[in-house]
Amino acid sequence: MQALLDSLRHIVGSAHVHTDGDLSAWEQDWRKRASGKALAVVRPACTDEVARIVHVCAAFRSQQPDSGVSLVPQGGNTGLVVGATPDDSGRQIVLSLQRMNAVRKVDADNLTMTVEAGCILQNLQQCAEASNLLFPLSMASEGSCTIGGNLGCNAGGTQVLRYGNTRDLCLGLEVVSAQGEVWHGLSGLRKDNTGYDLRNLFIGSEGTLGIITAATLKLYPRPAARLTAWASVPSLEHAVSLLALAQRRLGAGLTGFELMGQLALGLVARHFPQLRVPFYEQSPFCVLLENSDHLSEAHARDQFEHLLEAALEQGCIADAVVAESLSQADQFWHVRESIPLAQPLEGLNIKHDISVPISGIADFVRATDALLQQAIPGVRMVNFGHLGDGNLHYNVQAPEHMDAAVFLARHEKQVNAVVFDSVTRFKGSISAEHGVGSLKVEQLEKYKSPVALGMMRAIKRALDPQNLMNPGRVLLT
Amino acid sequence: MQALLDSLRHIVGSAHVHTDGDLSAWEQDWRKRASGKALAVVRPACTDEVARIVHVCAAFRSQQPDSGVSLVPQGGNTGLVVGATPDDSGRQIVLSLQRMNAVRKVDADNLTMTVEAGCILQNLQQCAEASNLLFPLSMASEGSCTIGGNLGCNAGGTQVLRYGNTRDLCLGLEVVSAQGEVWHGLSGLRKDNTGYDLRNLFIGSEGTLGIITAATLKLYPRPAARLTAWASVPSLEHAVSLLALAQRRLGAGLTGFELMGQLALGLVARHFPQLRVPFYEQSPFCVLLENSDHLSEAHARDQFEHLLEAALEQGCIADAVVAESLSQADQFWHVRESIPLAQPLEGLNIKHDISVPISGIADFVRATDALLQQAIPGVRMVNFGHLGDGNLHYNVQAPEHMDAAVFLARHEKQVNAVVFDSVTRFKGSISAEHGVGSLKVEQLEKYKSPVALGMMRAIKRALDPQNLMNPGRVLLT
Repeated sequence: MQALLDSLRHIVGSAHVHTDGDLSAWEQDWRKRASGKALAVVRPACTDEVARIVHVCAAFRSQQPDSGVSLVPQGGNTGLVVGATPDDSGRQIVLSLQRMNAVRKVDADNLTMTVEAGCILQNLQQCAEASNLLFPLSMASEGSCTIGGNLGCNAGGTQVLRYGNTRDLCLGLEVVSAQGEVWHGLSGLRKDNTGYDLRNLFIGSEGTLGIITAATLKLYPRPAARLTAWASVPSLEHAVSLLALAQRRLGAGLTGFELMGQLALGLVARHFPQLRVPFYEQSPFCVLLENSDHLSEAHARDQFEHLLEAALEQGCIADAVVAESLSQADQFWHVRESIPLAQPLEGLNIKHDISVPISGIADFVRATDALLQQAIPGVRMVNFGHLGDGNLHYNVQAPEHMDAAVFLARHEKQVNAVVFDSVTRFKGSISAEHGVGSLKVEQLEKYKSPVALGMMRAIKRALDPQNLMNPGRVLLT
Repeated sequence: MQALLDSLRHIVGSAHVHTDGDLSAWEQDWRKRASGKALAVVRPACTDEVARIVHVCAAFRSQQPDSGVSLVPQGGNTGLVVGATPDDSGRQIVLSLQRMNAVRKVDADNLTMTVEAGCILQNLQQCAEASNLLFPLSMASEGSCTIGGNLGCNAGGTQVLRYGNTRDLCLGLEVVSAQGEVWHGLSGLRKDNTGYDLRNLFIGSEGTLGIITAATLKLYPRPAARLTAWASVPSLEHAVSLLALAQRRLGAGLTGFELMGQLALGLVARHFPQLRVPFYEQSPFCVLLENSDHLSEAHARDQFEHLLEAALEQGCIADAVVAESLSQADQFWHVRESIPLAQPLEGLNIKHDISVPISGIADFVRATDALLQQAIPGVRMVNFGHLGDGNLHYNVQAPEHMDAAVFLARHEKQVNAVVFDSVTRFKGSISAEHGVGSLKVEQLEKYKSPVALGMMRAIKRALDPQNLMNPGRVLLT
């Protein structure tokens, strides 16, 4: 083992191989659900170093198959499914991509940029902005998460409705295979039908098939204006009708459609009393809409107001307001983003990141709410999310006067079973945007089609026969 | 062999197993580049029959590995790379999906439709239209091609700029594996991060990994208006500048941006004298632009005119006209679509379907034109395509007074080498939208990264270890 560590030090320099001291920044996951023990944290500076690290580990593993040595790729360590931290065996090497944070190229005429895996998402947004372009991927963790992690998990976020998931924003990848070879697939092409879609296979594979070291990403012209509106709706069905109306009226201008349940907004009002939460007391749901316009703010406002008038006439909404200023728009978004921050202040809770077809979402919520109330009277549903994508963070909080720790200990499995069984009946997904990691790997065995799991296992064995890459994540070993 | 045919007859009924008579509709490819001999043409009516056919063939193959029996899935047989017709061994079974042509469901609230592989593309466009929705995939062969073939090849077409390739329009698949199992992956979800992206792996795999039997496809609200403009540009660089300007001004409204070279338009004028071809005599290139608007025709026209005025001022265009009526718009598109029809009337020619980053396209064309002129003085470049996607049909026609057959016999290999080497220098693709089939399978070995080819082979072996599914296509066996 010492020889392996010496080889790693030789590749990246001793200063970038950590084995002692406080390694919790790499060993503990973002939500503090798990804390492991790494054999080492290795921080390469370039693709060639990544390839040499993998090569050395693969060689070691083939000589000592029972050593248990394996690699855990890590970006900003902001994942939500315990997919990028080591287990407690002390045999896993965390391969941190954080030092690989160069923007290799911005090609404005091709509307692309080529960037390294360790680039922080917010830096990439700003980099695009500096060329008067837009990189639309956006999520709460954007100040810390890295694009390599976003790609590894196929992260979603708030702009999926218009621009898609991370997958849809990527044209090409550079990947180090489980054998330590480099695939130079950094294409800036919108069309390329020369064989199997390796790019999309690596995207979303959570580091289990290889290590993404760089990517060529799509850019867009910056919209001339971006306006935000807040509306209250009489029911979830009305929210779905509003979505259809907005899609018809605003076309691709509709870049955000976020749903927030009354209880979710109530938690924000309770724990952040300095925030003004509009309309929530009279309505079971509120919606945040965003309209991006390539012409002008006046044009955007005009369209937005026509839409909301029509929605009011049709009874889709009870009340609505278009933000008058950027600061008011920021305030609306701030309320939306404060929901996941208010939840832990209210106490531990059970989170879900599910999706169902939009046409079934109202029935799904009604049916599942009822099942949970029946199982645990007084249970509170903190329901919010990206309605435009059919993706809800359908979170479950203890009844008002039940101790949250007791609630979790007693009911977590039961609640998950009720929710996931219901999701399955509605032909949905038990992980819409967070991925599988180790947190949902057992659930996946239960809820995913055995034929699909069989194909996934065959692909894993084909590309990583030694099971060197992030073992036990996505698929049980 | 007779026992195998009997089993197939037992599964689909004797009327749907063809072994005698004129089978050229299935045995000869669309461009008449190759004609094979099938053991049988089998036409199942449902997914279960497809699964049973594959199962029976896999069992036969495992008993008689040297029999050479394999399956060639086929849709509308309109592919351009000889990927869906049998070889001349007499041992391949053509599995035609044409009888599986049901639309299983249109879900307007979810903006999806679930359809069987044998549905003809134009019928699906009309089906969406009947619900006042849009299925945007569109290409010259839409009256005959099937969605299963579109998915198998990840077909492109004229609306990629806004709506993406077929891949981007698909949310879920039903697939029969090489073992005859059915993967029920007909998800209507915009977000689903539960494991490897099997959907995109099957899309574009040209029937070599399994058989797509059905798909859930994205729909869009129908635009309120669609306008077409025709512009002449002083150079290819100006066309690229016009593209950037149009993307900025029209945003997602820009749904088409087709480039047409002077020689390409000259062939249309020569062979279809009844068509009026605007502006082409004064300019090296013309561009066809399409603006789709969700508000109104007046709004679309206003925006289009502002764009063209700005382009004229900036010198991007020499002249332009916005179609005054639907029939004038159709006439513009008709000219564009007549280019590939005029080419064979002028004589046999060498076709390429290449892409390069848009920022490099002008340099690519200049450099490659010069190399070809140097190699074959007087050679004529019939250059047209989807400039907005970086995708050119960069076709090469014999010099005016050279016999076309002689030209092909003497120069095809040389021309391909010049073009593909140049594409590779410009980091492009030798097959942007048509796929690999058997026509480009040898070229792929030369031009694709060996690391990528190695991964593709590993995946093929993992999912189809018997090499039962469309062998020799995409990858050499």
